[in-house]
Amino acid sequence: MRYEELTIEGRNAVLEAFRSGKPIDRLFVLDGCQDGPVKTIVREAKKRDTVISFVSRERLDSMSETGHHQGVMAYAAAYEYAQVEDMLKAAEEKGESPFLFLLDGIEDPHNLGAIIRTANLAGAHGVIIPKRRAVGLTATVARTSAGALNYTPVAKVTNLAAEIEELKKKGMWFVCADMGGESMYRLNLTGPIGLVIGNEGDGVSRLVKEACDMTAAIPMHGDIDSLNASVAAGVLAYEIVRQRLSAGK
Amino acid sequence: MRYEELTIEGRNAVLEAFRSGKPIDRLFVLDGCQDGPVKTIVREAKKRDTVISFVSRERLDSMSETGHHQGVMAYAAAYEYAQVEDMLKAAEEKGESPFLFLLDGIEDPHNLGAIIRTANLAGAHGVIIPKRRAVGLTATVARTSAGALNYTPVAKVTNLAAEIEELKKKGMWFVCADMGGESMYRLNLTGPIGLVIGNEGDGVSRLVKEACDMTAAIPMHGDIDSLNASVAAGVLAYEIVRQRLSAGK
Repeated sequence: MRYEELTIEGRNAVLEAFRSGKPIDRLFVLDGCQDGPVKTIVREAKKRDTVISFVSRERLDSMSETGHHQGVMAYAAAYEYAQVEDMLKAAEEKGESPFLFLLDGIEDPHNLGAIIRTANLAGAHGVIIPKRRAVGLTATVARTSAGALNYTPVAKVTNLAAEIEELKKKGMWFVCADMGGESMYRLNLTGPIGLVIGNEGDGVSRLVKEACDMTAAIPMHGDIDSLNASVAAGVLAYEIVRQRLSAGK
Repeated sequence: MRYEELTIEGRNAVLEAFRSGKPIDRLFVLDGCQDGPVKTIVREAKKRDTVISFVSRERLDSMSETGHHQGVMAYAAAYEYAQVEDMLKAAEEKGESPFLFLLDGIEDPHNLGAIIRTANLAGAHGVIIPKRRAVGLTATVARTSAGALNYTPVAKVTNLAAEIEELKKKGMWFVCADMGGESMYRLNLTGPIGLVIGNEGDGVSRLVKEACDMTAAIPMHGDIDSLNASVAAGVLAYEIVRQRLSAGK
């Protein structure tokens, strides 16, 4: 997974990005590099809970666009991340039951962009993605979201299962997409709900699935295994919309 | 729009491709080139009703991978095209009401692939695409369809509106996706149905829209204009699936 833009290279540039509060998705440091400036950068990254990867010189060289990475590179997000709190507040202000998307490891930026677009149009209050093993808010995601990123907040959390447990305490219900589940048409998907969509290849991970209240399946009448992740998210989201509309909510 | 593979270059190779019956999506000929072999190729292309574009030398040079196009290049489809007839026959054999997807100018191969994947899983009997101003069955489409192209037939027609009129005579109903339509939840989408999805930017063209019986809108609760084309196709297709299931059909 390689971001297309917003690569920050070199010690001063990376340190400056952290200090200015720019949202950094990931920091890459030359393995074994231990001098003062690099230590300062790593300390800043840890303060902000940024994912740090210690990589070989070959890897850094191949990622570098300028050729002057000085052992440090960072991927910056194209958009600011939001807080889950604020999504719940937005729902409350609109007098609506919270409706969130939780994406358990979407890797393809086109899928993430299309899902944020769907979340916006389905009237969801936000999208939650995990810090690790998932694409962040890159320029491609922003473009594919067709402007939805300007309206629909995206939060990044360290542990998706833990976040689900937190939100359940606040009265939310969670439904995860899985072929082995109950037909989505037979589930009650009204009320404060979080829709959990899994990784393109592996689906929803075990811990996240266990944290969910329900497992919803899209009826499959064909020969292949599964829908495209963004299509599946759209189909499930609109079953939620349909049930909300017919419940008059 | 540039296909990723299956570019055939040079006079002998292109002529051989036509004569062997290989499905050719498009022929490019150097503008003004009138010698015998080129005339023969153009004649073969016309016999097969292939779209022919007469282009400049610069254009051919930029498309060429080998640098030896000799004034002639063709884009071959990665898969064979099917006949609409056979889709109706397949539905009949299964004892099902025909369910077809008609795509009015999908240009992005990832969208086309995802839609064919959706058509397969929604239990549709085939996908109809137009000959012009649309992506054909390229290698990217095949890959993005996740194998669905091996099961779900795709037909290519010259005139989508005329095809709709033909199929209406056989008892099919057509619903086109358009924001200005009736909410899809309020339409009766059971029975023999064709779902018409428009181009990514422009939606369904006027003539095709006029040929349709119904216009279905996906309820929009957000700030932006429209869903991704393949997500919209999935949401509408599964509203048809839901109505078919609850109608016990």
